[in-house]
Formats: sequence, C-alpha cells, structure tokens
Amino acid sequence: MNKEVIYLDHAAATPMAPKVIAAMQPYLSELFYNPSAPYSPAVEVRREYEKAKQAIAQTIGSRGDEIVITAGATESINLAFNSIGGHIITANIEHHAVLEAAKRFDHTIVAADERGFVTAESVRVAVRPDTRLVSIALANNELGTIQPLRDIATVVKNERDARLARGDHTPIYLHSDASQGVGQLDVNVARLGVDLLSVNAAKVYGPKQVGLLWAASYVTLAAQILGGGQERGIRSGTENVAGTIGFAKAMELATEHRKFEADRLMTLRNQLQAQLTTAFPDAVISGHQKHRLAGHLHISFPNLDAERVLFALESRGVLVATGSACAANKGTRSHVLTAIGLAPEVADGSLRLTLGHLSNDDNMPQAAEIIIEEIRREYDRVAR
Amino acid sequence: MNKEVIYLDHAAATPMAPKVIAAMQPYLSELFYNPSAPYSPAVEVRREYEKAKQAIAQTIGSRGDEIVITAGATESINLAFNSIGGHIITANIEHHAVLEAAKRFDHTIVAADERGFVTAESVRVAVRPDTRLVSIALANNELGTIQPLRDIATVVKNERDARLARGDHTPIYLHSDASQGVGQLDVNVARLGVDLLSVNAAKVYGPKQVGLLWAASYVTLAAQILGGGQERGIRSGTENVAGTIGFAKAMELATEHRKFEADRLMTLRNQLQAQLTTAFPDAVISGHQKHRLAGHLHISFPNLDAERVLFALESRGVLVATGSACAANKGTRSHVLTAIGLAPEVADGSLRLTLGHLSNDDNMPQAAEIIIEEIRREYDRVAR
Repeated sequence: MNKEVIYLDHAAATPMAPKVIAAMQPYLSELFYNPSAPYSPAVEVRREYEKAKQAIAQTIGSRGDEIVITAGATESINLAFNSIGGHIITANIEHHAVLEAAKRFDHTIVAADERGFVTAESVRVAVRPDTRLVSIALANNELGTIQPLRDIATVVKNERDARLARGDHTPIYLHSDASQGVGQLDVNVARLGVDLLSVNAAKVYGPKQVGLLWAASYVTLAAQILGGGQERGIRSGTENVAGTIGFAKAMELATEHRKFEADRLMTLRNQLQAQLTTAFPDAVISGHQKHRLAGHLHISFPNLDAERVLFALESRGVLVATGSACAANKGTRSHVLTAIGLAPEVADGSLRLTLGHLSNDDNMPQAAEIIIEEIRREYDRVAR
Repeated sequence: MNKEVIYLDHAAATPMAPKVIAAMQPYLSELFYNPSAPYSPAVEVRREYEKAKQAIAQTIGSRGDEIVITAGATESINLAFNSIGGHIITANIEHHAVLEAAKRFDHTIVAADERGFVTAESVRVAVRPDTRLVSIALANNELGTIQPLRDIATVVKNERDARLARGDHTPIYLHSDASQGVGQLDVNVARLGVDLLSVNAAKVYGPKQVGLLWAASYVTLAAQILGGGQERGIRSGTENVAGTIGFAKAMELATEHRKFEADRLMTLRNQLQAQLTTAFPDAVISGHQKHRLAGHLHISFPNLDAERVLFALESRGVLVATGSACAANKGTRSHVLTAIGLAPEVADGSLRLTLGHLSNDDNMPQAAEIIIEEIRREYDRVAR
C-alpha cells in the first residue's frame, strides 16, 4: 500500500495480514493437489484443509464438521436462508445480502431505532407461529451498532419452548452475519446464542470470496450447489484450500489480538471523534454510543455533500466511505440512514470512517487534521 | 513440488503457472480495495477486474459482460441448470456436477458409446418438445473423449428452428462444461456452437474455486446468490479480484500455448501409450482413439487392482488416478467406466494418466519404466 495513503475504510475491505498471505503461499504453488485424490501428498492437503476448518471452528466455539466453507458471506447468508426458509424476520438496517435473500420468502422487516439498534422486543412482536428464521447481524456495517443478540436469542428460545410445550415442532432459529464483528467482538456461537452464523474472511484480514456458514448440529442445511459431494454434500466443488488455510490464519490472529486490537482502535476512534466534534459541534454521530464497534465512526456534517468531501479527502490521500461499498457506487442514499430516520440534509453529509490494522498513532492525527481542513473548506464553499 | 515426484494427474488439479501466481500477488496484498468503493485506488481495482473479465471473455470469443465469475465449474454448472431448468438432456458419462445438478429437473440421460462418445443422433432422439437444455462436456474428464459439440449444436439449432417455424417459443440451449478442454482445444463459443459454457480456472493452471459461466446475450440467467448486485445481479458478493486476475492470466497463457502444448502432450502421451501397450498387449485403452485430449491416457490392466497399483506407483513417486478425484476417494467403481460397458475385471484395473505442464521428455520415460515395473510386479503377484 502506498505509504502516503491513510485508509479509513476497513469495513469495506481489509488488507490481508502478512501471516495470512504467508500461510496461503504453499497452497498456491507446490501443494496444489486435489484434496479428493487418494495419493499421500493429496491426502496431506486434505488433512491441512480439515485442520484449517477445525481451527476456524474453534475460534467461534464450534466443531469443524459444523461449518461449510463458502465463497464469502453473501453465499453463506443465502445458503442459510434457502436452507431454513419459511417466514423470516430481519431488520431494516441489514446488509443487502440479508435483505435480498429474505425477499425470496415471506418476511417481516422490523425497524431499528434511531441508533440502529434492533431491540429484542421488536423481534418478539414480529414473531409469528410460522416464523422459522430470525436474522440480525452481530454489528451493523455502516453504523457499527452492536446488536443485543443474546436478548434476541432469548426471544427465539422462548418461542421455541412455547411451541414445544404445545406440541408444535415448527423450528425457529437465530442466524447472524458476524462479518463486521470478528476481530473486535467475542463470536463464540454458544455465548451469542445463535443457531447459524455467517463470517466473511475478507473483513478480517483474510482472502476475498472466502467465508463460512456455521450451523448447529440440529440444523439441517439444504445443498445449493450439487456435484462431487464436498462439504458434506452441502456445497460441491473442489475445495478452496489456499483460501481456507488463509481464513484459518486470519481467524486465529483475530482471536489472539481481539482484546488488544479493540482497545487500541477504540482509543484511536474516540480521539478522532473528539477532534471532529470539537471542530464541528453540529456534526452528528450515528450508531449506538455504547454498543458500537471500536473501529467505527459514522459522522454526518449537515448540509455538506459527502461525495464531494470523499473526493476532496482522496486528493489528500485519505480514503473514506460515505456508506457501505455495495451501495456507495450507486449514488443512492444509504437505506440504513433512511431507516434510522436521519434527515436527508444530515444523511447526505455522512462519512463512514472505519479504523483497523492500517490505523495507528502516526496517521490518525494526520487524518483528523486533513478531514477538519477539508470539511472546513467545504463549509466555507457552501457558505459563499 | 518435490523434484522426485512425477505427477500424472493433471485432470484432477493443475499447479498454478508461476506467471499466474505473479499476476495475482498484488491483489493479495496492496491492491486489496473493495472494487465497489468510489475512491480511485478502488476504482483502479474495479478496472483491472473488468479488464481481466474482458481478457477471459476474449479467450472464448465472447464479451466480458456475457460472463459471470463463479467459485469454480460446479457452481457455474448449477447456475446454468437452475437458470434454464425445464427438461434437460445430458449423458451418462458426465461429471457428477452435471449429473447431480440435472437431478433437480426432469431429465433424460443419453448413453455414450463404448468410446465415451456422445453422438448427435443420441441427443436428437432424446429431444422432447419441452427440452430446454442439452448439457454435454467438451471433453470427458476420465477418458479424454472429445465430444462432437458442433454436431450436437446442429441438433439443438434444428430443434429451435422447428419450434420457431411452428410458433413455439420454448427455448432450447446447448451448455458445455469445457473445463477439461481449455489449454488443449479451441474453446471459441461461436465455433463450438454452444449457448452456455462453463470453465474452471483450477484445471488450466489457475486458482482453485474460480470459474465462469458464459451465456450468450439472448440467454437469461437467474440469480442464485442475492445481495449487493455484483456480476450484473446474477451473483452477489464482493468480487474475487485476485482469483479473476489469475484466471485471466491462466486463460491467456493457455490460449497462447495451446497448439504447442497439445502437440507436445500428444507426442509424450503417444510414446507412453506405445510403451505400455507394447509391454502389456492385453491392456485396454479407453476413450475415443481419434477424438481424445492430447494429455489423456486411460488404460486398463485386466485382473489387476488399480488401487494397489496406484499406491505402489506412489511409493515410487509416480502420482496417478484410478478415476476422477471426486469418485476416487469413495471406493466405488467409476460411473463412466460402467457407462461405456467396460467389464468389471477390466474397469477395476484402470489407471487414468493425465499429462500436463509437469510432464516432459525427462520424466515421462522414467514414468513409463516405473509403471511397467510395477504393473509387472502386480501381475507376478496375482499369478502366484
């Protein structure tokens, strides 16, 4: 990466950790064997692949045979929804992958509050006798708001118990896309209380187009991609050995450094937030102020055009987002900001600054200075 | 790769070409940006991604906006089948990905002849008024038999014309999995006469879990994985930039060296075949003797246990297959050999030797010598 660039869009993409690249290298070259071949170098590749799955599983407190490696979180979410089906409950601030996958089914969209917080009560009210799946991301990708998954899990469990008590065996499960939380939050599936979990390697300093779906042993997944029967028949195709080895290393590193990294990012983020809100007292910070990812800062400068600011910042070497990367290119206002009721003149002046591995004590004060200068210049311009 | 290993299983997996790995490297490290982000380094990544797709498309004589990048050929085949649906015709020697994907639909399985050749006539007879898709691989992965796709395309075209003449607009398309043919055969979609084509990067010295589905502009694909709307909405999820760049380089190299490589492999393969059939006059060569992939040699040693031979060869450093890697680990007889009517005592003594980049003038004579020694030893053992 260009040394002069200050990258503040870790929620959109993360640079692979050098240890991740190193772990993958042999599987990109000499260890190229098909893991289904019977000779011992291939069997060894198969063993390393299974070990990597086991290592990944351990970081979320599960077993290797409970996860399916997918090509990223979007496929994982689609696999979960298509497997469970039925009436689905999700929230109006969820990622497009969740909202679009839900459209295939009868679904209810609950409203997050103005902090982007999805209350357990809102889910409880939406549950119907035929609800089979509740899907709420661990943390929102635009605001960083961390959801009360344990409370939502209790709602799901209570409904399940009530159904069983009346002899109704219609299952109800809780799914969560934890992609934005890994590396900063505890993602132990038992402690989260989820039945299915999606994770994206690309958001945690691992390779792109690699992810997983974890499903508890009592959940039946439905094969979407048929063929040679890989991944226990759920997802056929010769395995992504290098990608999975890299994913395992990324998850191990994330787990090992989670507490330290969350503290470090929170300190840097809070400094940045303080500098920006001191310089611009009218700026609006969105997202839950207590339950928020350590690296996330969503800040709106009323009456500014965030896209102009983004390109002005880019010309100074500071890369930021105005919303999630998926929506950013489409010139439409983020559905998340509409959902939390941000006024258009506030929403349209929003920057999403997401800190991560590339953020440090040196470049963050520089970033703050440049952002303040450019926002000031923009306010001067529009005032003229 | 271990210098002492002689790899004769290129149909199962190919080592990435050094130029492919080199092309991918920057996108595994500094060029990690999300291609949907709006700032210029990300826009540059997007541009390189689209250029790679365009380059891939050119190697099959199509346009970049007609291909969808998938996680390998299996997903590609499933996407094709799920998009077109209806009554499907395929053959009894097809890859599991094709046979399993077809099972979702009403389908007819035509029988290949004893050479693994699927005649156009057999397809013609199977066509029904509601047939929407015919899927025949360009070359069979076990036998190497190259199918008469142009003739089959004529059958499909005649049926289409007949339907139109009577005012019936039920579409009928020809799909082909060309994974085994790329690098040795012309895979120009217009010359093949196909409407849809699947290719797997991993079979052509590119990365694993990368592939494509090409569909002619008049074919409507149905999105399987929903979300951010990438790949023209057909397949959502942050793009596999590094994988696609590697795929493009692999396809370019394959196209550039195709004629030379096919000639080189055919010479080596024919030498090997001559040496083995001279040593063992009872050996049975399967597959079409004229229309066969240059690198493929399917040879059966009646009354031997191929699995024993495989491990004996492995102990001498020669890696071969008894069937396709997907089936090999399951201890079942290859469905392809059953389909072509090979007697069990012949089928069970079958080796699939597939030559490729790692085969050369030095190691092929050595391989022949070792194979002859080990087959002889096995025949001696069973004769005792």
